[in-house]
Amino acid sequence: MPVGTKGSVKAVSPEDLDEAGARIILANTYHLYLRPGHHTIGRLGGLHRFMNWPRPILTDSGGFQVYSLTPLRTITDKGVIFQSHIDGSKHFIGPEEAIDIQETLGADIIMAFDECAPYPSDYEYVQRSVKLTTSWARRSLDRKKRNDQALFGIVQGGMYADLREISARKLVEMGFDGYALGGLSVGEDQSTRQRVIGETINFLPEDKPVYLMGVGTPEDIVDAVNFGIDMFDCVMPTRNARNGTLFTSAGKMTIKNAKYAEDGRPADENCDCYTCSNYSRAYLRHLFMAREILSYRLNTIHNLSYYSRLMADLRTAIREERIAEYSAKLYRSYRKNN
Amino acid sequence: MPVGTKGSVKAVSPEDLDEAGARIILANTYHLYLRPGHHTIGRLGGLHRFMNWPRPILTDSGGFQVYSLTPLRTITDKGVIFQSHIDGSKHFIGPEEAIDIQETLGADIIMAFDECAPYPSDYEYVQRSVKLTTSWARRSLDRKKRNDQALFGIVQGGMYADLREISARKLVEMGFDGYALGGLSVGEDQSTRQRVIGETINFLPEDKPVYLMGVGTPEDIVDAVNFGIDMFDCVMPTRNARNGTLFTSAGKMTIKNAKYAEDGRPADENCDCYTCSNYSRAYLRHLFMAREILSYRLNTIHNLSYYSRLMADLRTAIREERIAEYSAKLYRSYRKNN
Repeated sequence: MPVGTKGSVKAVSPEDLDEAGARIILANTYHLYLRPGHHTIGRLGGLHRFMNWPRPILTDSGGFQVYSLTPLRTITDKGVIFQSHIDGSKHFIGPEEAIDIQETLGADIIMAFDECAPYPSDYEYVQRSVKLTTSWARRSLDRKKRNDQALFGIVQGGMYADLREISARKLVEMGFDGYALGGLSVGEDQSTRQRVIGETINFLPEDKPVYLMGVGTPEDIVDAVNFGIDMFDCVMPTRNARNGTLFTSAGKMTIKNAKYAEDGRPADENCDCYTCSNYSRAYLRHLFMAREILSYRLNTIHNLSYYSRLMADLRTAIREERIAEYSAKLYRSYRKNN
Repeated sequence: MPVGTKGSVKAVSPEDLDEAGARIILANTYHLYLRPGHHTIGRLGGLHRFMNWPRPILTDSGGFQVYSLTPLRTITDKGVIFQSHIDGSKHFIGPEEAIDIQETLGADIIMAFDECAPYPSDYEYVQRSVKLTTSWARRSLDRKKRNDQALFGIVQGGMYADLREISARKLVEMGFDGYALGGLSVGEDQSTRQRVIGETINFLPEDKPVYLMGVGTPEDIVDAVNFGIDMFDCVMPTRNARNGTLFTSAGKMTIKNAKYAEDGRPADENCDCYTCSNYSRAYLRHLFMAREILSYRLNTIHNLSYYSRLMADLRTAIREERIAEYSAKLYRSYRKNN
């Protein structure tokens, strides 16, 4: 899922997203709640209509942003009191509010309110945090009124296998439409993340989608798919695009590199996206060096197309039982060039 | 002509331009000469291919930018020695170099090298400047080698009627494919500009295009068309778009205005552009307040569509002999709202 934090996937239009192969995007409840406000979006017909994106949208619960972006916050059993990072104003969001906001925004998939424990946190903190997240998940389910939105629960538990198991089992008992793994990609090393994914996913039902939040690089995604993860969101393709880093079939490409100054080839010779079909590396480099706004758009279209194709290729590889072969090939292309 | 200074009309793609009704754009020789360099663009197949814009392009001579942007410059009969505004490096451009660069870039219309006298300048300075511009125009014509590019001469002469007449008569004797009025919109008041346009245009042939450089607001354009001007370039539609000012059939609109926060109507209810067909004032305001990159693109598409329609309407009004009526209506819409 490309990330459209404030109701726009940065630098691209809905048509660009569609052409790049995006079939669902993520929007951030916290940001839209603060600006322009969920009631405003609701009165204007909901988020799909507001941003002119008719395909599926997933909204996060706002939890992660409340913990990571706000200057001051107080967590109680009821929910979280926090200050806006925009104007310092005081706000309260608990599980009931998170569901109400997401129902007003009107996404297709909404998320239960959770506490994302900081990393690293000691066992006792994470144990209390899992209890809180579990009770908030129950209250999120109970609050839900709309029948046309799927609700996912978020498994927490830090890097502790037994707490992850407890969190997963409790959520599965409640019966969500899908399950997310939260509290990963927060600073832990790769092998720790892999261990936690592997330990947790066994407690989740095979017939429901499993979503790894905030991941990741192409290698991270391939890794996680090998563990059985189905869904991802990450700012990496869009943010890296704006920083001039392109993901290609030959690995990562830094477009400002002088060697591209007169290179008439497309960024990725194995890519049929709008950018690669119409523009040379030389032009992409020029736009980036000259800080032209078009640079951000063309790079973003390419990276999103790359990620869409990565996911499509993974689906095919799974169907054709070539996932190991495909994974090995992708790891090689990234190791070789970076 | 929308302005694509560095080989990109800021914030939009060639397809956006086409859909907005643009049929010719301007690119700046000075900027492209410095970065990425005309030889680079030439080796990559010329400017049309470089920027993926198959329709006509006009390049200016570089003269105006050399005078207005560079920190240090020395003007001699040969040409101008100047420092790059990017890295301070020293360069020389005279009429021969300006033509060579423009032939390498490969635009459809190229401009003779001129001196644009500062405003205000005394009579003696402008008199010498017209002599220089006249001799440079001759040398530009003599240097021209390609037969698939039109070459326009630039009339100078400051605000002095007799010098404008001399400049125009000399250029017409030489026989250019079109004529531009330079040295206007440089700080003079509106009535002075109108006087100079009116005094100068009589000395230019009716069967050649006349191009007023760097103008202007919708009212300025309607004024100038009433005097017989055919072509314009201006950064106003694109720059104002990025500053959140939209041109509409009801006058200028400041999109960040709080009154648009929940306004579900399109920016201009009489506009069928991509932006007005798909997005509300509320969304455009939100994107602008949140500094989303998409804001610049959507606003630019609208303003360019507005300007294209303005020019198309003026052509129709001329054909149907309703130009006075059309002009009065446009003046009213802008006076009423601003």
